[in-house]
Amino acid sequence: MEEAGLSTWQDAAGNQCGRMEGREPDLPALLLGSHIDTVPDAGRYDGMLGVLLAIQVATRIEPGTLPFALEVVAFSDEEGTRFGTALLGSRALAGTWDDEWWNLTDKDGITLSEAFTDFGLDPARLPGAFRRPEQLVGYLEAHIEQGTILEDADRRLAAVTSIAGARRFSLVMTGKAGHAGGTRYDRRRDALVGASELVIEIERLSKKHGVIGTVGQMQAFPGGVNVIPGRAEFSLDLRAEFDEDRDSVLALIDEAAAEIGRRRGLHFERDEIYRADAVRCDLDLRAAVEAGIRSTGDDSPMAFWSRAGHDGVAVVAVTPFAMLFLRCLGGISHHPDEAVTVDDIAAALDAFEATVHAYAASYSA
Amino acid sequence: MEEAGLSTWQDAAGNQCGRMEGREPDLPALLLGSHIDTVPDAGRYDGMLGVLLAIQVATRIEPGTLPFALEVVAFSDEEGTRFGTALLGSRALAGTWDDEWWNLTDKDGITLSEAFTDFGLDPARLPGAFRRPEQLVGYLEAHIEQGTILEDADRRLAAVTSIAGARRFSLVMTGKAGHAGGTRYDRRRDALVGASELVIEIERLSKKHGVIGTVGQMQAFPGGVNVIPGRAEFSLDLRAEFDEDRDSVLALIDEAAAEIGRRRGLHFERDEIYRADAVRCDLDLRAAVEAGIRSTGDDSPMAFWSRAGHDGVAVVAVTPFAMLFLRCLGGISHHPDEAVTVDDIAAALDAFEATVHAYAASYSA
Repeated sequence: MEEAGLSTWQDAAGNQCGRMEGREPDLPALLLGSHIDTVPDAGRYDGMLGVLLAIQVATRIEPGTLPFALEVVAFSDEEGTRFGTALLGSRALAGTWDDEWWNLTDKDGITLSEAFTDFGLDPARLPGAFRRPEQLVGYLEAHIEQGTILEDADRRLAAVTSIAGARRFSLVMTGKAGHAGGTRYDRRRDALVGASELVIEIERLSKKHGVIGTVGQMQAFPGGVNVIPGRAEFSLDLRAEFDEDRDSVLALIDEAAAEIGRRRGLHFERDEIYRADAVRCDLDLRAAVEAGIRSTGDDSPMAFWSRAGHDGVAVVAVTPFAMLFLRCLGGISHHPDEAVTVDDIAAALDAFEATVHAYAASYSA
Repeated sequence: MEEAGLSTWQDAAGNQCGRMEGREPDLPALLLGSHIDTVPDAGRYDGMLGVLLAIQVATRIEPGTLPFALEVVAFSDEEGTRFGTALLGSRALAGTWDDEWWNLTDKDGITLSEAFTDFGLDPARLPGAFRRPEQLVGYLEAHIEQGTILEDADRRLAAVTSIAGARRFSLVMTGKAGHAGGTRYDRRRDALVGASELVIEIERLSKKHGVIGTVGQMQAFPGGVNVIPGRAEFSLDLRAEFDEDRDSVLALIDEAAAEIGRRRGLHFERDEIYRADAVRCDLDLRAAVEAGIRSTGDDSPMAFWSRAGHDGVAVVAVTPFAMLFLRCLGGISHHPDEAVTVDDIAAALDAFEATVHAYAASYSA
């Protein structure tokens, strides 16, 4: 960001920030950015590519020429991998931080508050990261699609219409541990077999009703090779274009879990650890994104909803947003095989730069 | 053991040993014992009770009166919890130690060799723990039943006829990690859903064919709440009265895993980490156990096979063995609720002492 001529700072939530003034000092800012955290065993593009494209766009803009300031933001924690709660960086910026998060713990028992301190941040100063609506004119993010809609259509870029509403849960199935040899089947209360049935039901119900349900975490306890599991801890990520569909499938999953519990003598608990309802992209910003795509020679830009969550879900609380999607190989993401072509990145950079100019033109008008 | 008047030592495998001489010095020994390791979140009786009963029997025997020496042995690792391989202590004593085990690692990557050294043992001296057949006359173990056969029959004690043949495996289902939102169901290769199907099949096939199959360990990787699992690591413990039944169900499980793999684009691997074929108790030692039970007022002792594995499975390689089972509450074991009544323990102590005298009488004759 410094090489791009931006004045830079780290905000109180660990977001990395840079700013270029507009036609006059202290104008509200158009934010460009994405996130720089990732998931375990991830690829190289999810998040990071959007930050680099934002910085590259900044290098192409003449300082002092836009009717707003231009800021680049690299959010510190979008995925929620370490503490199970997503969008920490963007929720801090949007001022929707929840002080209960300070007590979230990672797998080693370290609290979010301790992690902040270890990193050199001061939890007490977190409100310093909050931005006010009057400081901002909007948020634009470029991101790989993490799906195959563009690839299947043989297209490079798309505008996003909305972001799916996702809910995430910690699930626990509790039975009774017992010796693998001595406990008759009719007396077993095997938490893992019950959890396994629910995993299959989550897939079946999600497919049947057109929503997306994923169990990404699963661990059996106490975890002896010759001990019937007394406890299974697992996760659920549930998302859909419309919140109503998502929530009605959740009710069916609860019914399935209750039936399994009755039949197997198990107790089921579900705790919500994250909830984002579906959010729509701003029509003016989206029009600028589509104008940017058209400038690359694509006369009829594709537009569709994002199955994945993004920082816009949080940022929308303080300023409108829109997104530019790039085609990626086979829809692969959250995996080392994640891939984007150089040509597609070049097109995205041109489109993203043109988006800023298109928005500047409509903003001034 | 010292309070019981035994001369004591720790052998080269970390087994705790004590000895009382018989009518003359250096006679071969009757071993009494069990194991002092346990499983995570265990009860208080599995293993340890058998060691304490052996020591108590020793306190009741007049030194120099038996036609053999009496030794108490507390085996160091029967469960195999830390390194996934069971019967380490008794296999060392029986001289069936496998040098490949030195490279087994625990969950922190510490090898068995390093663990020995950290504990103050010298892996190079392990053969010092081996016992020769001519040094021993037999092995007797008292243990909680870890099942409900005695409780259901309203009986306190039983003789064991044989120990089930158990095999244990590390199972891995490999698919492809991917973003929970962007990966369409028809392109998913979700390792956890495949593993969950196999868990249910293992239960169904085991129940159908009268064997005992347990999945005690399960973990999904990479383990992000919003990442489709690319890998599931789990375990299988399979046991039956007859080895043939156990092995034919294993073949059916393999078929089920292959079918799941074909249908879901997953790769299945199975590595054997432990194998013990069914072993029969010695008829003379078992007759002594039954005589011991009769001495407590039970005129027709029960006798049945052990669903659980025990150190006798290893010790039988070097000397014959038999076992005395105690009733335990609800068959609960490998759980803090494990419970035995004081009255049953008193009866077991009397029976175990009488067993030694009965065997001494038949041994001399």
